[in-house]
Amino acid sequence: MNSKYAPIGVFDSGVGGLTVAKEIMRQLPNERIVYFGDTARVPYGGKSKETITKYTKQIIRFLQTYDVKAIAIACGTVSACSLEEVEKELDIPIIGVLKPGSEVAVDKTKNKRIGVIATESSIHSGMYQKYIQEIDHQIQVFAKACPLFVPLVEEGLWEDPVTTEIARRYLQELKEQDIDTLILGCTHYPLLIKTIGDVMGDDVTLVNLAYETAADLKKLLESRGLLNVAATEDYEVNYRFFVSDVADKFRSFAESILSDVKFSTDTPFITKQINIEAF
Amino acid sequence: MNSKYAPIGVFDSGVGGLTVAKEIMRQLPNERIVYFGDTARVPYGGKSKETITKYTKQIIRFLQTYDVKAIAIACGTVSACSLEEVEKELDIPIIGVLKPGSEVAVDKTKNKRIGVIATESSIHSGMYQKYIQEIDHQIQVFAKACPLFVPLVEEGLWEDPVTTEIARRYLQELKEQDIDTLILGCTHYPLLIKTIGDVMGDDVTLVNLAYETAADLKKLLESRGLLNVAATEDYEVNYRFFVSDVADKFRSFAESILSDVKFSTDTPFITKQINIEAF
Repeated sequence: MNSKYAPIGVFDSGVGGLTVAKEIMRQLPNERIVYFGDTARVPYGGKSKETITKYTKQIIRFLQTYDVKAIAIACGTVSACSLEEVEKELDIPIIGVLKPGSEVAVDKTKNKRIGVIATESSIHSGMYQKYIQEIDHQIQVFAKACPLFVPLVEEGLWEDPVTTEIARRYLQELKEQDIDTLILGCTHYPLLIKTIGDVMGDDVTLVNLAYETAADLKKLLESRGLLNVAATEDYEVNYRFFVSDVADKFRSFAESILSDVKFSTDTPFITKQINIEAF
Repeated sequence: MNSKYAPIGVFDSGVGGLTVAKEIMRQLPNERIVYFGDTARVPYGGKSKETITKYTKQIIRFLQTYDVKAIAIACGTVSACSLEEVEKELDIPIIGVLKPGSEVAVDKTKNKRIGVIATESSIHSGMYQKYIQEIDHQIQVFAKACPLFVPLVEEGLWEDPVTTEIARRYLQELKEQDIDTLILGCTHYPLLIKTIGDVMGDDVTLVNLAYETAADLKKLLESRGLLNVAATEDYEVNYRFFVSDVADKFRSFAESILSDVKFSTDTPFITKQINIEAF
């Protein structure tokens, strides 16, 4: 068992997981983070379960070289396709984004009609339906893959007429199903929250995985006696970011997403490139 | 030296290279093809030169297990970023898409103003400018990265108002530069040729890498005595397709792109998944 001063491992196929990392920084301000973004093999959303699980195991082996005390999978696709398989083999706590998101959606819905938007591989896994119906089998789940959302986010078109038009097409069938709650099932999607909210209207509650996952991680660490409640003299909060390719591009994206986070040092984070295939 | 009955290796990061494979089938109807699409790591267009070259070397090692007599790089990004490095190490002919495309563009332009559209990594390499200005240093080259075109093609929006709007934005600055010739510098882009043509107007000649590369490959094989001019009794033309992930999805895309190719057998091609990282 690693000490409560050990860092938390957080990973994603790329930059989307930074929305989760940011929430962890906000809700768990004394925790160190080691972040990995698989920018050499991004995106995961159209890949097979076997390939995604292979990549996930390499990343977990890498994070364990930093003696992480827990791991947060900050990627909807990995949480849907690979969490069940990898958690069996791990002796530290690991958390995905699907379960926290599903629990909150079940709590919020009044008409028992929940929508889920995510990548193709996530929707294809059927895991959202499984989690939600395990809690309440009377709930109907309407799932829709939105493959262009990730490239649109990566291109910076967070609020743009083109993104609105694509969102209108993807979300039309969910609107017709009269859902009252919509899970943003991919960690890129919070960056589109204004566009998605405008299309869905005020009557639909949007569930943001980043917020819920950080809250659940906090509870999990508390229950295991692993939460670091206060910084000490010898301990400094730090954030390390690793990627498998194009570190400069990642860094500028990270700086934009994390721009309103208050860091305790002048050099809040370093970014390094590593060869993930070697793990 | 492999015999003229040996297959040609053709590869791409994914499905875009099928536009080149199709032209090879049409212009070199007696040639066998072994095609590889790196669907586990697609897209390459935003990745670094080092990573793209590493992936390219693995793919070439895989193709050589089929004793290919020549290799056609059916990917603009690999041709721009990695051809120069890998061709030094090879003892069979290898051809990319940039040089044939550049030569034709130089031949077509009258006002000596050529535009190039391609992925971020291709444009960043500066290789189009280099090839074109080596032929004629008076030509001005205007290059523009179009990162959303590949996801739009992969999503099937080949002719769609959203694609037209994105094309209008990307191409505006090239129109303002008064180019008379535009190289479609990514093998996905021929699938958008109608949209791009409509935006650019009739006065701009579009250069399609697929056609030119197949024509150049034919000349190259002829000059080396490697062209297979006629099928014999013991020899049957066949096409084998390999991918690193999601073979089913690749296959349905391939069937759509190759739908108007006439095959000589009832089962024109097989598709298999392999572990490319092992090569």
